Amino acid sequence: MLSIGHIDPNSEAPLYRQVYESIREQIASGELEDGFRLPATRELAGQLGLNRTTISAAYELLEHDGLITGHVGRGSFVARPHPPRPGFTKRNQGGVNWRELLDPTEAAVTPSAGAISFSASRPSEHLFPIAEFRVTCAEVIAGPEVQTILQLGSPAGYAPLRRYLLDLARVEGEARESDDILITSGCQQAFDLLQRTLAPNGETVLVEEPVYPGARHAFQRARARVIGVPVGPEGIDLEALEHALKTERPRLVILTPTFQNPTGATMPQHAREHLLRLASRAGAVVIENDIYGALAYQGDTPPTLKRLDESGDTVLLRSFSKLAFPGLRIGWVIGPRPLIQKLTEAKQWSDLHSDQLSQAVLLRFAESGRLEHHRQHVLQTGGERLKAALDACREYLPAGTVWTEPRGGMNLWVRLPQPLDAGELLPRAEREGVSYLPGKYFAVGRLDPGALRLSFAGITPAEIETGIRTLGRIFTEELERVRAASDLEAPALV
Amino acid sequence: MLSIGHIDPNSEAPLYRQVYESIREQIASGELEDGFRLPATRELAGQLGLNRTTISAAYELLEHDGLITGHVGRGSFVARPHPPRPGFTKRNQGGVNWRELLDPTEAAVTPSAGAISFSASRPSEHLFPIAEFRVTCAEVIAGPEVQTILQLGSPAGYAPLRRYLLDLARVEGEARESDDILITSGCQQAFDLLQRTLAPNGETVLVEEPVYPGARHAFQRARARVIGVPVGPEGIDLEALEHALKTERPRLVILTPTFQNPTGATMPQHAREHLLRLASRAGAVVIENDIYGALAYQGDTPPTLKRLDESGDTVLLRSFSKLAFPGLRIGWVIGPRPLIQKLTEAKQWSDLHSDQLSQAVLLRFAESGRLEHHRQHVLQTGGERLKAALDACREYLPAGTVWTEPRGGMNLWVRLPQPLDAGELLPRAEREGVSYLPGKYFAVGRLDPGALRLSFAGITPAEIETGIRTLGRIFTEELERVRAASDLEAPALV
Repeated sequence: MLSIGHIDPNSEAPLYRQVYESIREQIASGELEDGFRLPATRELAGQLGLNRTTISAAYELLEHDGLITGHVGRGSFVARPHPPRPGFTKRNQGGVNWRELLDPTEAAVTPSAGAISFSASRPSEHLFPIAEFRVTCAEVIAGPEVQTILQLGSPAGYAPLRRYLLDLARVEGEARESDDILITSGCQQAFDLLQRTLAPNGETVLVEEPVYPGARHAFQRARARVIGVPVGPEGIDLEALEHALKTERPRLVILTPTFQNPTGATMPQHAREHLLRLASRAGAVVIENDIYGALAYQGDTPPTLKRLDESGDTVLLRSFSKLAFPGLRIGWVIGPRPLIQKLTEAKQWSDLHSDQLSQAVLLRFAESGRLEHHRQHVLQTGGERLKAALDACREYLPAGTVWTEPRGGMNLWVRLPQPLDAGELLPRAEREGVSYLPGKYFAVGRLDPGALRLSFAGITPAEIETGIRTLGRIFTEELERVRAASDLEAPALV
Repeated sequence: MLSIGHIDPNSEAPLYRQVYESIREQIASGELEDGFRLPATRELAGQLGLNRTTISAAYELLEHDGLITGHVGRGSFVARPHPPRPGFTKRNQGGVNWRELLDPTEAAVTPSAGAISFSASRPSEHLFPIAEFRVTCAEVIAGPEVQTILQLGSPAGYAPLRRYLLDLARVEGEARESDDILITSGCQQAFDLLQRTLAPNGETVLVEEPVYPGARHAFQRARARVIGVPVGPEGIDLEALEHALKTERPRLVILTPTFQNPTGATMPQHAREHLLRLASRAGAVVIENDIYGALAYQGDTPPTLKRLDESGDTVLLRSFSKLAFPGLRIGWVIGPRPLIQKLTEAKQWSDLHSDQLSQAVLLRFAESGRLEHHRQHVLQTGGERLKAALDACREYLPAGTVWTEPRGGMNLWVRLPQPLDAGELLPRAEREGVSYLPGKYFAVGRLDPGALRLSFAGITPAEIETGIRTLGRIFTEELERVRAASDLEAPALV
């Protein structure tokens, strides 16, 4: 017997969808059996006081879901869900063989949700300056530029934003006369366009080991040879880099010299200068990912590679995402003009241009001084969160654990004592309400089973303390368990 | 003698930039000669009543432009602009050889600006419903979802928008239970992701001839084999398609069956059904670009291929760009779930996800009924513009010219009588204040020198009439000139 529950005309869900959901649930639960005849649309519309087209729309949805079948003149009947369409599994005669076209999907490693999540290297949405954002939006959409913003734009980016960012970079010594700028849909797109432009044919690319997986994927999916060079507390290992430059002859070296993701490591100035000499001698292009550079909670950061590079060849990537609003996908690339021209062409055939509403809003947010004001707030809370994380590591992690001690950014890197495996321990941590990303997510060629990343910027100091205390207890218990087991397994001393 | 003009503290340009511009102009004009010593920053700051750091910033910009050189303790001097940095042209020892890395850029064909431009297939910004857009934005940013919108999102798209569009497509019979949806950064990105996913290794792709160049470029830049199949007044030539399917064994067939760009052609239903049978038999995936389908000014359009395709294999591309605001880069793909999963993965490594502010604003714009209300207005003005274009073609184009007569969309396709060359005539048209895109811009393998595209949706009926009248005069005069010349050149009759 069909019984439609309360239909709420003020709900966000359209009426037809509410009717559809109600019937679908009754089919799924078995309340409505196979072959049950649904009331005619006119009849049900009358019962519910709704328009007949609303009921028709709900029935159409059910029919497309394969949950009912309609027979002209006879009505609609509940039907067992159809088996999957043959076209998507196996096809013998004609049609598209999707299975053959598409390789089996590699299981994507996605950050898992715990009550306390150290999984995402992103700002907390609770810190978003919503009031300032609203004022900024209101100013932009009330302004005379709104028609231009809503119209098709330039692949290079919204001209006033490009000018603003390039001027700023010139004043700060980070762009030269020979440089130009391209606005990208976040920093991830910059990696994609650099792959398209500079590593289209399986070229060799050096990255940090461990590395932000988005950088690795952008190049590996296009079959570039991606080789990891180890990162220590002072950033990339220069001896290993020198060796790799000689033996691997890479075209690109991609680095995050300040508050690297995932380790939080920062290269000192002398190391940066040495790196530039090594790369220049090898003729390799240095790509500097500086999306965390503005987040120094203690002291100053060394000058960027771009600023130190007298040849001007370094390519600088930046973004608003770590500082302001990650949901607005706006980043930028500053580099030699001929390269920017090529990247702009690649950008045009990738997505024509980046979203102009967000470009205009972020420009206004920056120009009005609100971005800098917000940054000061982020620096203060970030510093508190970083301190809470480091204090909790000292307090709760078992002896033998080591971790980086960054002075900014969003991440720190923890190495558990052997034989603990951070990946194996994650399900238990999640059951106890805490999540993190194990080191394997960031590996290029070397697996470090004891490693994990703690992203601390998105949660409060209290959550950080509770979370690391829980992790410390789990790691300590596990360590005691395996040590006790290994004592039992040890050969008797004779 | 340095003389800084009026510095306006209320200008949008920062003060340092105004000072910089003023000095730069004086150097460029020669008023300030090579070697001229600029006043000390403290001195100039005092003269202008500005902060000393403002003057320093202006001088830094000038120095980075290579227009002045600073000498500690001596001051700053006007210097001839530096020659281009050697790193970007030729480098003998170390450094990056940009010339070797980057091929010479193919001259991009960009729509040229005339006083009356038939060059861009886009809506007029004067028709944008700015007031409704402002209300929509205000509602979205005042709403409780704003934190979620500003935070990092899902590669698949903003969930409420995905649900809305997929439900709508299900109700309209354009999505099945086996289908899923991916939000893209406009339709151009859909082409890019389809290339990444379905044509990564030089596969063969059939497109229309002539074709929207963005579709061609997205595949050709990745070295897919792109083959054009001629388009007639009833869309793609089915005999030629059947032949190409047999001989070329394409993996993809990309089509715009309704109001095709550039021709405006629409396939009748029987042709669509036949096409689906042909493609299914050949095992080729049909990609249906339907971004103009909602713009039918007269009568109805035939059902989409996606709707007619009983196998469910067709992939449907749509976008808000032609209907609402092209500056907000939001489109979508509906197709079989395993394909959407692969495309979503490719999307993640391309740009993480599409801009969420624009996704939320467009969802609200659609859900509130404002999009449909705006569409009705667009249909009315579009119909008037189409009529004005067709009337003017009949009135002013020289005898022997043929053109398509679409019933919707934004474009019509004109073929001039031989031996006129639309590309050769463009500079003259531009000098007389009218621009269009010549056929070569849309060619795949066959050049049609007499062809040109007239995009009529972005300009008023009066502009359309004036523009086509001007073009008609130019074409007629040119035709008379070449015919007169060919009469003279004809051999004497003996």
